[in-house]
Amino acid sequence: MASEFRKDPVTGRWVIIAGERGQRPNPFRHYASAVESADPCPFCPGHEEMTPPEVLAYRDDDGCANAPRWSVRVVPNRFPALRIEGSLDKQAEGLYDKMRGIGAHEVVIESPEHAADPSAYGPRQMVEVINAYRDRMTDLLHDVRFRYVLVFKNHGAAAGATLAHPHSQIIALPVVPARIDAELHGAGQYYDYRGRCIYCDILTQEIEDARRLVVQNADFVAFAPFASRFPFEMSIMPRNHDAFFWGLTKHQMQALAEILQDVLRRLKLALKDPPYNYVIHTAPPGYASPERYHWQVEVMPKLTEAAGFEWGSGFFINPTLPEEAARHLRDLEQVMDLPEGHLLARPVPDAGGG
Amino acid sequence: MASEFRKDPVTGRWVIIAGERGQRPNPFRHYASAVESADPCPFCPGHEEMTPPEVLAYRDDDGCANAPRWSVRVVPNRFPALRIEGSLDKQAEGLYDKMRGIGAHEVVIESPEHAADPSAYGPRQMVEVINAYRDRMTDLLHDVRFRYVLVFKNHGAAAGATLAHPHSQIIALPVVPARIDAELHGAGQYYDYRGRCIYCDILTQEIEDARRLVVQNADFVAFAPFASRFPFEMSIMPRNHDAFFWGLTKHQMQALAEILQDVLRRLKLALKDPPYNYVIHTAPPGYASPERYHWQVEVMPKLTEAAGFEWGSGFFINPTLPEEAARHLRDLEQVMDLPEGHLLARPVPDAGGG
Repeated sequence: MASEFRKDPVTGRWVIIAGERGQRPNPFRHYASAVESADPCPFCPGHEEMTPPEVLAYRDDDGCANAPRWSVRVVPNRFPALRIEGSLDKQAEGLYDKMRGIGAHEVVIESPEHAADPSAYGPRQMVEVINAYRDRMTDLLHDVRFRYVLVFKNHGAAAGATLAHPHSQIIALPVVPARIDAELHGAGQYYDYRGRCIYCDILTQEIEDARRLVVQNADFVAFAPFASRFPFEMSIMPRNHDAFFWGLTKHQMQALAEILQDVLRRLKLALKDPPYNYVIHTAPPGYASPERYHWQVEVMPKLTEAAGFEWGSGFFINPTLPEEAARHLRDLEQVMDLPEGHLLARPVPDAGGG
Repeated sequence: MASEFRKDPVTGRWVIIAGERGQRPNPFRHYASAVESADPCPFCPGHEEMTPPEVLAYRDDDGCANAPRWSVRVVPNRFPALRIEGSLDKQAEGLYDKMRGIGAHEVVIESPEHAADPSAYGPRQMVEVINAYRDRMTDLLHDVRFRYVLVFKNHGAAAGATLAHPHSQIIALPVVPARIDAELHGAGQYYDYRGRCIYCDILTQEIEDARRLVVQNADFVAFAPFASRFPFEMSIMPRNHDAFFWGLTKHQMQALAEILQDVLRRLKLALKDPPYNYVIHTAPPGYASPERYHWQVEVMPKLTEAAGFEWGSGFFINPTLPEEAARHLRDLEQVMDLPEGHLLARPVPDAGGG
């Protein structure tokens, strides 16, 4: 069967069920990237025919589509969890709700270099990756069936990546993910009560307090959240209030690329090249109260296997004090081998408050 | 510093931050069991002095406390994430909320046998384990500071267990975990609208539909949830409506032990002894609307590493159709080596509806 969305009747959470009907179930199947085994690598230049035709590519000259000489290339996932064609066909099944697995599932091939490390991309590369996120988001959101576009990166096998060639993923959904819904709800309640954006208030407090700051530049602040669920979790927040990621200017794109690379470099140094995920949080398109939400990037290294009861309870134990994680990441300034002319972000003076 | 609870200001989720202040952060530290390295095993009979004094133990005769000849033994966690002494001392930190890490963190040593397999315990063993869960829960809930007691098991290193000797964990909390809150909310809304328990309705539909049933006995039904987030996820639900786990009768305890062991045996056979977690879901003590909630056990094998963007988005892709997982688990009847006189649960005739 094609995939379908199913709604948990109690919590209201939608899940994509992507199984094949009538086959022996394969719980290990991944929908995390365009192919499952990779020799040769389908993401390398010269192998463009191994992926579905590109939906976006940046090329310096007038190179042909689906041929080499690209810097960033976006292709549909070859084994997508969702299909782009058709109507949602919402249905009941007794007390349950379901709909067809309509959506888009794309792969952003971030670099032509197979072994490139995102934290060490050349000056333009990460800017182009972020530009590709924005371009694809705005394009996908023209489709009125889609209520959210999820952009995320799984880096390293333990974080869910099945191919080594650097890539991230885009999933366009007919529903708003549960976590985003919870954020919109919580931020909305705060706004109702105080008349201010909670994220703007968080930013003000974090900058003033400084104990959880990791790095900042003119446009963005990276910090360890007060109630971090995971060790070395970070939030990258724009200083200027904007509910929508796609409101990003060219200038902000540059600044985001810089701080994101800086943060990834710190994680790599601090934690020996850990697997990690990052996820872009944005208000859904057409969100009617943009004063209430503030887009941000969540960065989570995957350090322990101890995820287990957390899934069942929603309850987390974090063994690392966010203030200590932030201090440790800040202190790396002293040993960071920043490329010439590439000093990315203004270090924060240690506030000594920890 | 001692641990503390911190509340995410946007989503309202509480997290235990268990770090040590002023130490180099150790993101790999586990609070999953009583000790971190284990040679000799602190949970084996004869090593009782290696754990804090027991808070509960079942012994056949009048053996001494903290000496061998027990069948199940419950001890405080030696490196607890929470401390039992003191007041919560709720405080603001700017716009954030925090309180001291007050709670209980105990380990249920499920068997004196170091290499025992929970799915193959002798007839009385699992009943005693469940009895210990109930005894400790009711005891801990006499403490008015505790609003919830979380009972869960991490089996296998990939599911967060740090010691091989079979054990589960009990955490008494001054807050209700986020997932339970969401369930109470969702089940409450359904009740307001329909005047019925949503879980009772789910049970009726699952039994009638039969495609997702795995196994049932006179008191319990095990099935793959309609919107399973993970492959081979299962829910074990009592047929009789009861909001509270501790309402369990002796007879039901026996029936739960049987179906839980049956389910674990199926997972072991189907998935080659996978790591797994189970979590008991119950209404909080004193919950004023017990007609709205229905306790249950959630069982989740841990099969893939692909947990990553799910943490950031709350959005899940499950590659295995729940109907196919259930059919596969049902079909194991044919090859299950059930111990003599130990046929645990009535197999469900394949409804053929899949």
